[in-house]
Amino acid sequence: MQESIYGKGLSQTAANHVPLTPLHFLDRSADQYGDRIAVIHGELRQTWRETRARCRKLASALVKRGVRRGDTVSILAPNTPAMLESHFGIPLSGAVLNSINCRLDADGVRFILKHGECKILLVDREFSDLVSRAIADLPSKPLIIDINDAGAPPGRAIGDLDYESLLSEGDAGFEGVWPADEWDAIALNYTSGTTSDPKGVVPSHRGTYVMSMSQLTDWGMPRNPTYLWTLPMFHANGWCFTWAITAAAGTHVCMRKVTAKAIFDSIADHGVDHFCAAPIVLSSIANAPDPERRPLPRSVRIRTAGSPPPAAVLKAVLALGFEVEHVYGITEASGTPVSSYINPEWAKLDKDEQARLMARQGNRSAALEGLMVADPETLEPVPFDGKTQGELLLKGNVVMKGYLKNEGATRNAFSGGWFHTGDVAVVHPDGYVQITDRSKDVIISGGENISSVEVEDVLHGHPAVLIAAVVSQPDAKWGETPCAFIELKAGVAEPTGAEIISFCRERLAHFKCPKKVVFCSLPKTGTGKIQKFRLRELAGSQAAITELAKAG
Amino acid sequence: MQESIYGKGLSQTAANHVPLTPLHFLDRSADQYGDRIAVIHGELRQTWRETRARCRKLASALVKRGVRRGDTVSILAPNTPAMLESHFGIPLSGAVLNSINCRLDADGVRFILKHGECKILLVDREFSDLVSRAIADLPSKPLIIDINDAGAPPGRAIGDLDYESLLSEGDAGFEGVWPADEWDAIALNYTSGTTSDPKGVVPSHRGTYVMSMSQLTDWGMPRNPTYLWTLPMFHANGWCFTWAITAAAGTHVCMRKVTAKAIFDSIADHGVDHFCAAPIVLSSIANAPDPERRPLPRSVRIRTAGSPPPAAVLKAVLALGFEVEHVYGITEASGTPVSSYINPEWAKLDKDEQARLMARQGNRSAALEGLMVADPETLEPVPFDGKTQGELLLKGNVVMKGYLKNEGATRNAFSGGWFHTGDVAVVHPDGYVQITDRSKDVIISGGENISSVEVEDVLHGHPAVLIAAVVSQPDAKWGETPCAFIELKAGVAEPTGAEIISFCRERLAHFKCPKKVVFCSLPKTGTGKIQKFRLRELAGSQAAITELAKAG
Repeated sequence: MQESIYGKGLSQTAANHVPLTPLHFLDRSADQYGDRIAVIHGELRQTWRETRARCRKLASALVKRGVRRGDTVSILAPNTPAMLESHFGIPLSGAVLNSINCRLDADGVRFILKHGECKILLVDREFSDLVSRAIADLPSKPLIIDINDAGAPPGRAIGDLDYESLLSEGDAGFEGVWPADEWDAIALNYTSGTTSDPKGVVPSHRGTYVMSMSQLTDWGMPRNPTYLWTLPMFHANGWCFTWAITAAAGTHVCMRKVTAKAIFDSIADHGVDHFCAAPIVLSSIANAPDPERRPLPRSVRIRTAGSPPPAAVLKAVLALGFEVEHVYGITEASGTPVSSYINPEWAKLDKDEQARLMARQGNRSAALEGLMVADPETLEPVPFDGKTQGELLLKGNVVMKGYLKNEGATRNAFSGGWFHTGDVAVVHPDGYVQITDRSKDVIISGGENISSVEVEDVLHGHPAVLIAAVVSQPDAKWGETPCAFIELKAGVAEPTGAEIISFCRERLAHFKCPKKVVFCSLPKTGTGKIQKFRLRELAGSQAAITELAKAG
Repeated sequence: MQESIYGKGLSQTAANHVPLTPLHFLDRSADQYGDRIAVIHGELRQTWRETRARCRKLASALVKRGVRRGDTVSILAPNTPAMLESHFGIPLSGAVLNSINCRLDADGVRFILKHGECKILLVDREFSDLVSRAIADLPSKPLIIDINDAGAPPGRAIGDLDYESLLSEGDAGFEGVWPADEWDAIALNYTSGTTSDPKGVVPSHRGTYVMSMSQLTDWGMPRNPTYLWTLPMFHANGWCFTWAITAAAGTHVCMRKVTAKAIFDSIADHGVDHFCAAPIVLSSIANAPDPERRPLPRSVRIRTAGSPPPAAVLKAVLALGFEVEHVYGITEASGTPVSSYINPEWAKLDKDEQARLMARQGNRSAALEGLMVADPETLEPVPFDGKTQGELLLKGNVVMKGYLKNEGATRNAFSGGWFHTGDVAVVHPDGYVQITDRSKDVIISGGENISSVEVEDVLHGHPAVLIAAVVSQPDAKWGETPCAFIELKAGVAEPTGAEIISFCRERLAHFKCPKKVVFCSLPKTGTGKIQKFRLRELAGSQAAITELAKAG
């Protein structure tokens, strides 16, 4: 500010400037809502006061074990209390929290432990074998802590000590090592690598604070929600809901394994009113057999992301009484900076049209200061015509600090002062963004662009199709043509490839229809995304396809 | 952060670090909810897209008129669209928004215009005479803009031009002068001066951003609320609800004059579901005559602050179907950093006990990083015993930058790294804070402290009492004794002073009972607070009391 009366005597002090961090939410809930249940897990009911005490003990014990500010402490666990406590206890020790995707293979885990320079690794017994293999060749082995979760399947103890013993070394009155600056790293989240090697996304305390608050305001979240952990916490810290639900003094309902039955049971037995889930989870809810279903005792709100929910699945889930919203999540923005608010006006439209509108990713949340779909080179925004494609670009405080030890990738990602998502999108006249393809998923056939999403949408309308994924395959004549990989619903009569192609031809321009159809079980990433890069490899090899189809 | 792998290559860039400011909320609502109604005022219905265009035109016109970054632009108006637009348009010009309490007298307004170095003053026609008197002796006169609000009573045009003409000079495509730093001043809010001369509280863009988000999360606000403007926007920017309701893409329902009838009508006619109000407004709702009442078509949520709502008023308002929460507001923390969450457990208690619990100010919101009740010198916290008094101290990002041109007062207010509220409080075993007195409101009689609030609570239990205020009066024997000023309900049989004193003696230690009772209309500040400093002056003068009692 230029020389003005406001330029003098109005400095930052300890009273009016404190680094923004989601860690304060824990103290506040323990102070104001100490007796409320913070965590439900099996038979466990843990209050906010107890949860704070355990998080402080974890932080204190880590410091006593030698953790220093800026060290990496990793955890490999499903959605358990230890995983939630780590979201507070690890950063409160001054360390950076690295939640590792527990669906990775040993090579993937090893890459992360090495690249992130992990000092201490907490591991749920279910994954002790995986970790044993991952650390076998590590030059510098982290201290290993076994988490003996009550719900874990038997697994070898591989640790130097166990989680409860570690906590008992700590002090429940520990004040914590608070961030010196809100720009300090709070976490290290590796991308799941659908299109390339994993990159280590580093969010700041500031960014995760803003995303946490925004998750509450953007969803219009009531106080004290009961939130079910279907979304893995290792996925961008559960889109910051680990911290957001704490800010709302809600109840975290843990869940080791996501099944439709477990979801229906948690809703009926624990009062669950909110959860986040990939479309594949919605699909399992929609297709759950009758004995697993239980009536909803209240409205339950779902946010879904990863890929647009197929219209048929969406309709089925809505018919059960769920409220569903579609959001756009990306690890590099700490969660879901874009959401598809359901305009009440849409209620006048027919169900198919509603589903079509809801399948769009939406518009920016209050946390995101900038969003545009533009030419990634010239930064020229596309017109709001629902047709012209550009790259989705974001700007704001929820965007990561950058990729760890990867200045080249960081520079590319932030080129021109915008974060480049790599997602291709259009903007509709109402300002809603729709992802038409991951950059790598565009199929170019005879000079025409084909959106794999568009073809997949049609395939999802076929009564026998559970999930479909379309990728390009090399073609001598057309350059590329679409190849469809299809997972069928259980117990349906298997259609032929020709029937599927003919089904598409009735609904799509002929050049967009798959030239080949493979029935199989689809390979997925740890976060439930279909591994299109693997399908793309397979699409080039008839031998591999034959093997995949046999296995599926 | 010490030398660690996170210390390198992860810098702030234009993509991941943007100054926090509530001004972004306007763009976001215009982008995502452009066709939704942003403002209702009489016959006016204005969408978010239109509102943004008008705010940009205001900002653009101010810049063309010579406003520079860090200048002060003032407005003196009731809760009208121009007042709301000024909350975006003025800061978007780079200026600091100074909303002046329109219940001040000419001397009070002159003090602010001079102290704040106002360059341009927007004034509603209702207050043109007031402003004429206020600026008569100003050495440097601001540019005056008349606001010709449709609902304003006739008033002299005194401006250089009118608000709509000013807007027509502006550009709806203006990009805005955004804060260079989030610590920049966004507003200048003078305290209403219950205990001393007005001080100019300066909040930052960062602080008001955090308070705005917290208002939504702390109240568990749904998206798109319909918010009624009973709380004056000139009171700490309406506790940041000017910006918060915009962040929620809600509808602002304006209101020039707060009456019970207008409130009931707005609820029935405009879909109002939330508002904030001083206890005096609750009282008017509770005591509204039947023809003014209309049944509530939905649950309507109220937050009240200023003083604890009297139990009888609270019960009456709850019985009408309103949901009421008590919060603690203070201009120096940009709104209400403390709130009294109603624990569902309380529902088991009897109504009087519930009212007693709800009358406490509560605990800190997620936006406030620190709260304690402590000895203001030693900073030793009081025990959580509901008895030991200390000063309420706050710490966090919502706390003001400081007092304008008053480094001494700023230093005192922030002594020891905490903001000193000047309010005396106790902490109950459940962690809830209860204000027992404004520092100046303690009556010391014969060496014993008397809480004026406690005496007032008893008086509010008398069936004829509408509002009661108790202050000290000088006493030859005891030093001070309590003097009660009482405003009676309309149409009740007037009790005698002796009856009131006897009513108190049945319910209070005798030394706490008023020695004198005055029936009158109570003098109030612009924000509805009772002007205790005036009552304190009056309590010393029998002649003044006789005159007040006659006028009342």
